[in-house]
Amino acid sequence: MPAFINVALDAMGGDNAPREIVKGALLAVGECDNVKVYLTGDKELIEKELRGQAYDTSRIEIVHAAEVIETAEPPVMAIRKKKDSSLVIGLNMVKDGTCSALISAGSTGAVLVGGQVLVGRIKGIKRPPLAPLIPTETGASLLIDCGANVDARPEHLLQFAQIGAIYMEHVVGIKKPKVAIVNNGAEEEKGNALVKETFPLLKNCPDINFIGSIEARDIPAGKADVIVCEAFVGNVILKLYEGVGATLIKMIKKGIMSTTRAKIGALLVKPALKKTLKAFDTEEYGGAPLLGLNGLVVKTHGSAKAVEIKNAVLQCVQFTEQKINEKIRVKLT
Amino acid sequence: MPAFINVALDAMGGDNAPREIVKGALLAVGECDNVKVYLTGDKELIEKELRGQAYDTSRIEIVHAAEVIETAEPPVMAIRKKKDSSLVIGLNMVKDGTCSALISAGSTGAVLVGGQVLVGRIKGIKRPPLAPLIPTETGASLLIDCGANVDARPEHLLQFAQIGAIYMEHVVGIKKPKVAIVNNGAEEEKGNALVKETFPLLKNCPDINFIGSIEARDIPAGKADVIVCEAFVGNVILKLYEGVGATLIKMIKKGIMSTTRAKIGALLVKPALKKTLKAFDTEEYGGAPLLGLNGLVVKTHGSAKAVEIKNAVLQCVQFTEQKINEKIRVKLT
Repeated sequence: MPAFINVALDAMGGDNAPREIVKGALLAVGECDNVKVYLTGDKELIEKELRGQAYDTSRIEIVHAAEVIETAEPPVMAIRKKKDSSLVIGLNMVKDGTCSALISAGSTGAVLVGGQVLVGRIKGIKRPPLAPLIPTETGASLLIDCGANVDARPEHLLQFAQIGAIYMEHVVGIKKPKVAIVNNGAEEEKGNALVKETFPLLKNCPDINFIGSIEARDIPAGKADVIVCEAFVGNVILKLYEGVGATLIKMIKKGIMSTTRAKIGALLVKPALKKTLKAFDTEEYGGAPLLGLNGLVVKTHGSAKAVEIKNAVLQCVQFTEQKINEKIRVKLT
Repeated sequence: MPAFINVALDAMGGDNAPREIVKGALLAVGECDNVKVYLTGDKELIEKELRGQAYDTSRIEIVHAAEVIETAEPPVMAIRKKKDSSLVIGLNMVKDGTCSALISAGSTGAVLVGGQVLVGRIKGIKRPPLAPLIPTETGASLLIDCGANVDARPEHLLQFAQIGAIYMEHVVGIKKPKVAIVNNGAEEEKGNALVKETFPLLKNCPDINFIGSIEARDIPAGKADVIVCEAFVGNVILKLYEGVGATLIKMIKKGIMSTTRAKIGALLVKPALKKTLKAFDTEEYGGAPLLGLNGLVVKTHGSAKAVEIKNAVLQCVQFTEQKINEKIRVKLT
């Protein structure tokens, strides 16, 4: 019997916990033969969700946690005080080697702080970047960094580029991924002080396929696979992506319900439209990995449902099988 | 006879010059009684476009310019060397007081450099911001700054907020416009070094209705009227707005043409959809003003057609009638 890949899953984090989290775990063990999921959280509540479900009982295990970290709690304090929370217990299982990864839909701040404090950075990694996959016309690109630590230095951005390239090549399966830096123009002389200092570092890095600057306009078209930026800018890109998408879809729905003629058309258009918009849905991509840690920590949307959780688990399996952290250690440290 | 408001219009700038620019001038003088437009550019070409058109000949005048600044030219050099270009001649007409404003669809770099070098800053204004109106669910917001000068300091952002508030109140007609600063979180302790330093300046400024931080997600929903940010971030927001919108619309079109059923629906939906998307079209807003100069300089899209040009002219009239620069001088200097 081959050893399982063990993944800890915070069953209490997010708007739809524990129901959708547990459902996601069931989907994951159904789809993938060699994963074992440790559900951390309130034993009774989790058992209630599992009751009546058919699944390989050797591959889902409950680890009781008496506490839950709420979204509104100050992250540093929460991680320090709530040692018996579903998140801290899960992170400690990565730290002690029981699990290779932890997934949580809970407080972003607590996940980021907990990942760094409890799981810890790979030696030589200056800042662990949070790197969500964002949908594009041609598939998805890795946006690195969207984390909590803003005002990065050029050497941080260089590491983001290298880590991002490894991830896209070996987890997502893009050969020689195109790496670009977010800039306010395509010309080499453009940029703020940070970009101008970072550009030559990226240009001279033999590990990556650097294609130069990318303007924000070209991100949704999928012109680069790894989009390197400082976390403040990454946050603006990620959230504006969601915001423009949501507003536009809302306006379109309102538009096609505004006349009787259009309403009839809407009925006919709906199935095809739904399929298209699904391809542009960030939830399809299974959450954002916090990279450069001694293990993997994945933050999903707070609103994550079972499919996103399942995709996150599969992502963790791929990450572990591809020995991403060993590759990062060899290349970067 | 009341004095006209004189506006210089670079007839040679942009992808559709001179045809759409001249058309825009004709629309503007047709719609507004007290504007006079000076078309700068190749006399013969402009005359050709005017031939056969009915218009008040006392309110459109051609000012011949033998040269044109191309988009690819280095801006500083182009402004210095091409003294006989349609752009430089137009800018000099603002400088010498013949016109109160200049509009160009030509090279953004040349317009920004030329505005600052030839028209010059209002005394006390540290950096003239470029401030496009961006569409939102509820109307439009002013995004200030999207100019070429990145890495602004807190005192610059404070001026942007004050100038932006004056513009939104008196040109767009929003009473007590809500001013917000772009941030990576809604909480006051969030932000990069620049935002953290700027926040108290905005909070303590009695001239503006400061509502705090705005996350990029909330910009398209229209939660603030004046969106204050540093130019690098402003550039990312503006271009991602266009990029996500364009990609999403492209994907939706593809989606609703993917099945026969959907194609029939598309025919019925089209008119209502077109109307909706028009409301989310940046071209409706008549270009981006470069503010804080001794006069007004407006940059329209390179792809601007007649309606955008007309809207830009009307914006210049409003700006002049409302004595915006006097208001800026009183409040800021």
